[in-house]
Amino acid sequence: MNKTFLSTALLAYSLAAAAQTVSSPDGNVVVAFSLDGSRPQYAVTYKGRDVILPSHLGLELARDKHASRGLDETDLMDGFTVAGVKLDTFDETWQPVWGETRDIRNHYNEMAVTLAQTGGRTMVVRFRVFDDGVGFRYEFPQQKDLVYFLIQDERTEFRMTGDHTAWWLPGDYDTQEQMTQESRLSEIRSRFHDAVNWGNSSVAVFSPTGVQTSLQMRTADGLYINLHEAACVDYATMHLELVDAQTKALTTKLEGSSNAYTPAPAPSRFPLPPAMTFVSHLTPDATGLKGAMQTPCQSPWRTIIVSDDARDMLSSNLILNLNEPCALDDVSWIHPTKYCGVWWEMIVGKSNWHYTDDQPSVKLADFDYSRATPHGRHAANNEKVRRYIDFAAANGLDEVLVEGWNVGWEDWANMWKRDVFDFVTPYPDFDIAALNDYAHSRGVKLMMHHETSSSTQNYEQHLEDAYQLMNRYGYDAVKSGYVGDIIPRGDHHYSQSMNNHYLYCIRQAAKHHVMVNAHEAVRPTGLCRTYPNLVGNESARGTEYEAFGGNRPDHTCILPFTRLQGGPMDYTPGILETQLSTWSSNTSWVRTTVAGQLALYVTMYSPLQMAADLPEHYERPDLAPAFQFIRDVACDWDDSRYLEAEPADYITVARRAKGSDNWFIGGKCDENGRRAAIRLDFLDAGRTYEATIYADAKDAHYETNPKAFTVTKKKVKRGDTLKLTEAPGGGFAVSLMAK
Amino acid sequence: MNKTFLSTALLAYSLAAAAQTVSSPDGNVVVAFSLDGSRPQYAVTYKGRDVILPSHLGLELARDKHASRGLDETDLMDGFTVAGVKLDTFDETWQPVWGETRDIRNHYNEMAVTLAQTGGRTMVVRFRVFDDGVGFRYEFPQQKDLVYFLIQDERTEFRMTGDHTAWWLPGDYDTQEQMTQESRLSEIRSRFHDAVNWGNSSVAVFSPTGVQTSLQMRTADGLYINLHEAACVDYATMHLELVDAQTKALTTKLEGSSNAYTPAPAPSRFPLPPAMTFVSHLTPDATGLKGAMQTPCQSPWRTIIVSDDARDMLSSNLILNLNEPCALDDVSWIHPTKYCGVWWEMIVGKSNWHYTDDQPSVKLADFDYSRATPHGRHAANNEKVRRYIDFAAANGLDEVLVEGWNVGWEDWANMWKRDVFDFVTPYPDFDIAALNDYAHSRGVKLMMHHETSSSTQNYEQHLEDAYQLMNRYGYDAVKSGYVGDIIPRGDHHYSQSMNNHYLYCIRQAAKHHVMVNAHEAVRPTGLCRTYPNLVGNESARGTEYEAFGGNRPDHTCILPFTRLQGGPMDYTPGILETQLSTWSSNTSWVRTTVAGQLALYVTMYSPLQMAADLPEHYERPDLAPAFQFIRDVACDWDDSRYLEAEPADYITVARRAKGSDNWFIGGKCDENGRRAAIRLDFLDAGRTYEATIYADAKDAHYETNPKAFTVTKKKVKRGDTLKLTEAPGGGFAVSLMAK
Repeated sequence: MNKTFLSTALLAYSLAAAAQTVSSPDGNVVVAFSLDGSRPQYAVTYKGRDVILPSHLGLELARDKHASRGLDETDLMDGFTVAGVKLDTFDETWQPVWGETRDIRNHYNEMAVTLAQTGGRTMVVRFRVFDDGVGFRYEFPQQKDLVYFLIQDERTEFRMTGDHTAWWLPGDYDTQEQMTQESRLSEIRSRFHDAVNWGNSSVAVFSPTGVQTSLQMRTADGLYINLHEAACVDYATMHLELVDAQTKALTTKLEGSSNAYTPAPAPSRFPLPPAMTFVSHLTPDATGLKGAMQTPCQSPWRTIIVSDDARDMLSSNLILNLNEPCALDDVSWIHPTKYCGVWWEMIVGKSNWHYTDDQPSVKLADFDYSRATPHGRHAANNEKVRRYIDFAAANGLDEVLVEGWNVGWEDWANMWKRDVFDFVTPYPDFDIAALNDYAHSRGVKLMMHHETSSSTQNYEQHLEDAYQLMNRYGYDAVKSGYVGDIIPRGDHHYSQSMNNHYLYCIRQAAKHHVMVNAHEAVRPTGLCRTYPNLVGNESARGTEYEAFGGNRPDHTCILPFTRLQGGPMDYTPGILETQLSTWSSNTSWVRTTVAGQLALYVTMYSPLQMAADLPEHYERPDLAPAFQFIRDVACDWDDSRYLEAEPADYITVARRAKGSDNWFIGGKCDENGRRAAIRLDFLDAGRTYEATIYADAKDAHYETNPKAFTVTKKKVKRGDTLKLTEAPGGGFAVSLMAK
Repeated sequence: MNKTFLSTALLAYSLAAAAQTVSSPDGNVVVAFSLDGSRPQYAVTYKGRDVILPSHLGLELARDKHASRGLDETDLMDGFTVAGVKLDTFDETWQPVWGETRDIRNHYNEMAVTLAQTGGRTMVVRFRVFDDGVGFRYEFPQQKDLVYFLIQDERTEFRMTGDHTAWWLPGDYDTQEQMTQESRLSEIRSRFHDAVNWGNSSVAVFSPTGVQTSLQMRTADGLYINLHEAACVDYATMHLELVDAQTKALTTKLEGSSNAYTPAPAPSRFPLPPAMTFVSHLTPDATGLKGAMQTPCQSPWRTIIVSDDARDMLSSNLILNLNEPCALDDVSWIHPTKYCGVWWEMIVGKSNWHYTDDQPSVKLADFDYSRATPHGRHAANNEKVRRYIDFAAANGLDEVLVEGWNVGWEDWANMWKRDVFDFVTPYPDFDIAALNDYAHSRGVKLMMHHETSSSTQNYEQHLEDAYQLMNRYGYDAVKSGYVGDIIPRGDHHYSQSMNNHYLYCIRQAAKHHVMVNAHEAVRPTGLCRTYPNLVGNESARGTEYEAFGGNRPDHTCILPFTRLQGGPMDYTPGILETQLSTWSSNTSWVRTTVAGQLALYVTMYSPLQMAADLPEHYERPDLAPAFQFIRDVACDWDDSRYLEAEPADYITVARRAKGSDNWFIGGKCDENGRRAAIRLDFLDAGRTYEATIYADAKDAHYETNPKAFTVTKKKVKRGDTLKLTEAPGGGFAVSLMAK
């Protein structure tokens, strides 16, 4: 964690109403701040082209019952003058514990605008301008006239220059497991209803023009713009509500949500911005309020990544750089992990998490599992887990995830059942001591699983015992899950309190040297820089949906532009037997080719990579040659080069394995197929590499012939070009072993 | 914990619609159950006189979003037939860990009515009929058609026979710290608004005819009726809404509450009962729902204590008997406790809980107290605590409570501040190790204090560490506090989830051998039988209000009829310097005489008794003679005899100290004064007792001459009569030492 600080105060002065500007180190990105009357506003340009037209900044505060006792109620929207502007610059290079590159440069120019409000209060808007975009946040210094406040909503505006193409998810307080929509901004409203996966275990949409971040856009003249946030700590997650031609007012009620408990917030007291403006919309708590704040404090960073080259969106470290440095003293126990697990066969429906059908429901305090009748389809049994351990040991996988090992799965989801799991009691057919011993004897670890069913109070009550159990048996990683509506009722997955919960679990885990991979939790905002034991999240539509009707073939060509901006995703790729009906009664099928599955280990960066298919599939003669790539591929990197990229079309990336001269290349395309031309100019000069190329066969197709792949070997060197054909829904993977 | 079970199944048969009855062992109390069409109803008589006119039973269930996934939505109100009636009888005598008597007889006849609902569901209503009243509850067996359900509200009716006199508190989801009102039922509505203490730190009233339990009434013809509940576990606390002549519908919204977050519940779909009927009204969660249930489960017991002798209301053990036996294997560490503490001088405003005024607020994670400027009025400092330890040691007090010992008091209440305390970090001037060592060297323990500020998630996150700290330093009791609105916002002090929280803390405390005394928590319902480490609660208006404008002189002549029905109260009596202005700038004053203060140690039963005034007051020559009674009085008893009682007028009780032949008598009266005639026919025959009588002086008066008392000694024997005059707002205390 070396850091080089070059921080210098360059300039500090007061000024009148004229715009203040700050540019990126290369001068391409410029932010201008000014007052519109007494309302703060900002604008962003890139290479002289407008990115964000003048847009207001501010927060509306709630009229709380305790206002008279010190909680402030005056909005932080207007009545401001500029009390001071401070410019600064910063340049450091830091090394992540794990990541896409060994070194990350954090280089920006900064402008901190101190705003004084009538009545004596002070707020700071701090801009950091990088070569690839902008981050800004609100800061609330401690002051006698602003000690505590409740947020009705943050009203940060992002006024677009036109009717851009956007890749968006319906804004939702509880789920992001939808297929991304591609449309013009003006089409969001008409497409909204059909874009919602109403069957998800927890849906809470709020506006027919509400969308999630990270939101990727492309302008008609070829600018790529991404809106997201960084370092969301003790604050509610931000959504964006698009003001379009039909908008009459900002949202004041849930629109068609299945979670109808949250009361309607008060309407905004400020004029509507012009059409094609996004306005921030925070996730509410059970009472409809958006956050409780105590000064000194600040909002997360609101991020705008911008470039005229789509590849820059993928290589950007802007969000990581806006997070705080590593908060852990000792990170020696954190390691990238390749794993398999008892999981896919349950997702597909072939076996079960639960153990018995004796009762319509169980209460853990009363039910005696030792006397229960097993139904015979419980997957997490001693025999099967040993089989997975043997498989992992034989194939260089580090860990074996076992879901359904612990009691309580008989009735676990969406019944408002508070005491749903205890996280420490195994099912009778899971011998936790013996299985961990066996795994360790084979050089493998078991990976813990904590499904919380979103009963967060119950989880917190058991958390210490659960982590102690992990320490006792030698687990060092946990996959946690948040399926279903949050208990206590009325709260949401992305509220301030839930964001505090997730971070609480991560911090407590760090004390126990436990790595966390949280599913259905909040979408990440780069906190893995500060807490590198947060090795993964799901927080998007993962491979499991290939068993629930399928993901669109372009899905994985979008995720790196959107979901992965905040941190790695446990996408669980590697389903080589793409036709589930060949081994189960599930009629769904994977919407990629086999070569496309292999590509994901490189294109979907994560320090945690699962080989998600069954061992018996990987061992099949027809699939074993493809599995070789999963065995070989690294999951930690010294260098990464995004070679080709276009949102929802294709991504090609080459990465050099950590501490090695070996490279791996992944290419993934959408339903149209394509030809990739990869110029190997990143290889060491004068050196020979043995390339193993896993490619779609000539007639491969994700629908009609997904399992047709070729494996070819050849010697290559710097300057060579690999020309590879990607089938519709396909891709390729290449390993380059330095000789 | 000896138990004698005489349980026998007497009778089980099916029947048609005719009323089924069950009588108390002495035949005085009779419960009749029948169906009104298909709606269950019950009625109660006492010695042939109506107590409860035919009243409906049932629950309305919520239409939940998850109804289609197994959560039931059909009301449990009608469509019932009687599927079976089972009669039973029970007689045991058990010994409480601490209590008013050594032995408690639990003797009742039982009738369990199994109700079958159209559609196949089953519900049981179980009645237990004691000589002094009735308990009944709903039971929901596990069954395939009733697995989970959400309660919109419980609709248990209690139809009164007339316009009784009632001693009532405004129904409130968050506080019971009001003065009791005495009025006819028909006057509740007009008196409601003025009865609310709107300045309380958390007020959430729901109806102008909503009242709390325990509710004490007296009929025109001299029957005493008390409505309350027993064994409220995993269920919301019950209030009662009176249907009066003006009622148009059951409450659907909060009426004038300062906590306006809870959404309005759906209106009842059933006809309004006749006027003068109470209908149960449960405390909602943040979404307005009243409870989430999983079968098998049951409601708390709804209790009706009835007698034609007011003294029977006070000696009743009906509520304790309806609770489950002790759940703890080892109770050796639980002990009645007399204590003093660093408390009253802060309540009065002479010193402070907090340490510094350096900042308008603090964040525990960031603030360095060791560098803070002390303001000099911090009470919990080493010197003062040693002074209290010395005082306790010199006067036979077991423990010393110290409030304000831990960091965070700078800004602790009602700011929606989540991370308000950590419960483990002392202020710089409180040397926790040295002070505990010193206390132990003097034979005294310190008593822990945990103010949670109602930030329950924060408290639970620190609970294990906090209890471990107590174990480390030798604390064995904690006073906890729940001032202010519940965090997370929208929840209430008496909701199902909060009731689960309180019990969670008690159970976790038991694991650490910690006794709990919870203030501002839910009013008790006899759970101290099951968890005898719950040694006290506040949960009513305590002595502290004598510093906030005063309690009415009849206040302590009501509490034993109401609040104390569910369990002991930490009333913190013993303020012998009744005029606060003599030593502080507080102009409030105690509304009793000194002798009245002494009486409370006997009339207000509690295993936990505080000597709440300052040591320097107890040591004053004019007050030390009165303090001698506080030194002498027991706080655990083998026997108790209620000699005289009338709600809000007077209470006289004699108690024999545990394992001793010594008796203590307390008499307390209202603002009118009275003459008590105490026939000492409970003393051992042929034995002499030295009586020390602490009485109001002739001209004593709570307003004009509160500190005029006399101490006289005389020899007495069985059959003698003590005639004692109680001044207005006064009382007396007598110790009888067996010779």
